[in-house]
Amino acid sequence: MIDTKPVAVQQLLAPVQAKLQQVEVKMKAVDSVIFAPLANAFLDLIGSGGKRLRPALALLTAGAAGALTANESEGPISSNGRGEHGQADRERRVLALAAAIEMLHTATLVHDDVIDGALLRRGAPTLNATWSGGSTVLAGNYMFGTAALYSAQTEDLRVIHLFSDTLEVIVTGELNQLRARYQFDQPKALYYERIYAKTASLFCAATKGAALLAGLSDEAVEAMRQYGYHLGMAFQIIDDVLDFTSDESTLGKPAGSDLLGGTLTLPFFYYAQEQRDPAAYLAAVAELHRRAEEEEEPAIWSNQTAEIVHGVRSANAIAQSYAEADHFLAKAHENLALLPPSIYRDSLHGLCDFVVQRRY
Amino acid sequence: MIDTKPVAVQQLLAPVQAKLQQVEVKMKAVDSVIFAPLANAFLDLIGSGGKRLRPALALLTAGAAGALTANESEGPISSNGRGEHGQADRERRVLALAAAIEMLHTATLVHDDVIDGALLRRGAPTLNATWSGGSTVLAGNYMFGTAALYSAQTEDLRVIHLFSDTLEVIVTGELNQLRARYQFDQPKALYYERIYAKTASLFCAATKGAALLAGLSDEAVEAMRQYGYHLGMAFQIIDDVLDFTSDESTLGKPAGSDLLGGTLTLPFFYYAQEQRDPAAYLAAVAELHRRAEEEEEPAIWSNQTAEIVHGVRSANAIAQSYAEADHFLAKAHENLALLPPSIYRDSLHGLCDFVVQRRY
Repeated sequence: MIDTKPVAVQQLLAPVQAKLQQVEVKMKAVDSVIFAPLANAFLDLIGSGGKRLRPALALLTAGAAGALTANESEGPISSNGRGEHGQADRERRVLALAAAIEMLHTATLVHDDVIDGALLRRGAPTLNATWSGGSTVLAGNYMFGTAALYSAQTEDLRVIHLFSDTLEVIVTGELNQLRARYQFDQPKALYYERIYAKTASLFCAATKGAALLAGLSDEAVEAMRQYGYHLGMAFQIIDDVLDFTSDESTLGKPAGSDLLGGTLTLPFFYYAQEQRDPAAYLAAVAELHRRAEEEEEPAIWSNQTAEIVHGVRSANAIAQSYAEADHFLAKAHENLALLPPSIYRDSLHGLCDFVVQRRY
Repeated sequence: MIDTKPVAVQQLLAPVQAKLQQVEVKMKAVDSVIFAPLANAFLDLIGSGGKRLRPALALLTAGAAGALTANESEGPISSNGRGEHGQADRERRVLALAAAIEMLHTATLVHDDVIDGALLRRGAPTLNATWSGGSTVLAGNYMFGTAALYSAQTEDLRVIHLFSDTLEVIVTGELNQLRARYQFDQPKALYYERIYAKTASLFCAATKGAALLAGLSDEAVEAMRQYGYHLGMAFQIIDDVLDFTSDESTLGKPAGSDLLGGTLTLPFFYYAQEQRDPAAYLAAVAELHRRAEEEEEPAIWSNQTAEIVHGVRSANAIAQSYAEADHFLAKAHENLALLPPSIYRDSLHGLCDFVVQRRY
């Protein structure tokens, strides 16, 4: 599925392409365990797998830290005096981490479908549209269970703790996101908490976890955690901007769907601030939403959403959001300074640029 | 909540009552993390907590293996030359295991509610009846996440692996149970797989995990795993019998609800075998269910279920099921032979009798 992506990402992920394929194989080894029809639905979902950005982050970090074995064509590496055996073992653990992270990510997407009642995800029919809500919950649980299994396979207590802490952050974040829906007067700080829980926390787990497995110094581990954090925050901000600026054919879902579902994102916060009387504006929006609910007239709210999307697009809110993303990305670049030069580090820099490029 | 249970169980759990309270406190430390209304719903669900049989199994096993610190009133223990510090640390890990297991159990109950659309669980309104399906899924996920966190707190890779393997067994079992619903011609072997996945696997994780943390020999660890297995299988068989023999006021849910929902249990398998032509009987039952579905007349199926419940009650099926449970319990008693005599071991024996007593 990766060949349908722009060449730029392909090139960035090239140094870990072979290892990414191994992660893919590991993730897809489900069909022996569960019955065929559901296994196929799983494989579809796992297979539609986007960019594999999260496992790639783990692999690139490990590569930059000298913890990946060479591809067969490149001959053996025995850097750091660790020898072949220790290196292969280390790489096996990195692959387990990468698979754990992507499986957890996929599990949350599957459950999101149940929660949102969303019918489209990545442009493909979701499990939920094919299966009943009940089996979708179970499919997500199966993925959670598999992710926990992979996490244990890292055989590193620090990484297992990191993984379970991240799982906790993600699930708490989802509850908080549900709670904050349609709360138009919420503080902007909640937005940052949400995107950390939803996206940046898993980016951090990928980069920090790989740094731990690679045996980097405490200082370098912390720098890689921060790289993951900054990249993840920027990534989600751009994602949230795209929800306003793109059309359905690009997004695979209708524009403005976050707002339609009551999730407030950065462009909306900026847009509200641009209004003459922000508090009065937000109260009016809240009132319209309340009416739509009370009168069971969803059109009231979808029309209002369309109007806001139109407003946001022609306002300063987009530029302000981009500026914030740039701020995070500049920090992400800085966080890589401790790593020695390598093709892997080049790709980690390149991923920052890729995030910027997504402003199509 | 424990004081509403019969005295017998109270007495059996008395040796670990203080530690069970600590598990309770650990499990209920959620309110600082999530928002108040949902925290209360959680606490209700966690608080309605049944017998706490699973964490008690972990604690009793640890106690029988000499790995619990004494209650304050009893003065210090320093058996096995481990000293006070190591002992307290070991107990902390056992408590983490006990909490992980009960939290995982609670998580599966919460998701079961979504999947079954059940309105009653343990006689109390479920989260699902109070909250939307979406937030119930998230509440279950939060519990899964917390369980993983507790599991990591055992700081023992063997136990973490055991826990994630068990999670995998449980979630795979749930998928398989869903698949087998209303498959009236399924082999009886699937029943044993289901009750292992649903109940015995977690009993095993409790007893084996505690045995590992207590540092028992490989042979004793295996014996404790088998004890958990045999007790769990018997426990679930009795549970499945009670679904036929009890009334709604005792069960907290209507009698025959397993069969109504298409889950075939041991008494049904035996009952079908008692029919003159079992295959023809099963085909006729399947046909009635098919008609109920096709004609959207659920009464056809609920009448049929009521008739089968009546038949099972007056048939040999109940006695045959009890005999199987007894067989498992006899083995469970034997599995305790390696443990030295103690009040904890007495309780582990007593729990076998308690399972039998549930034939009210």
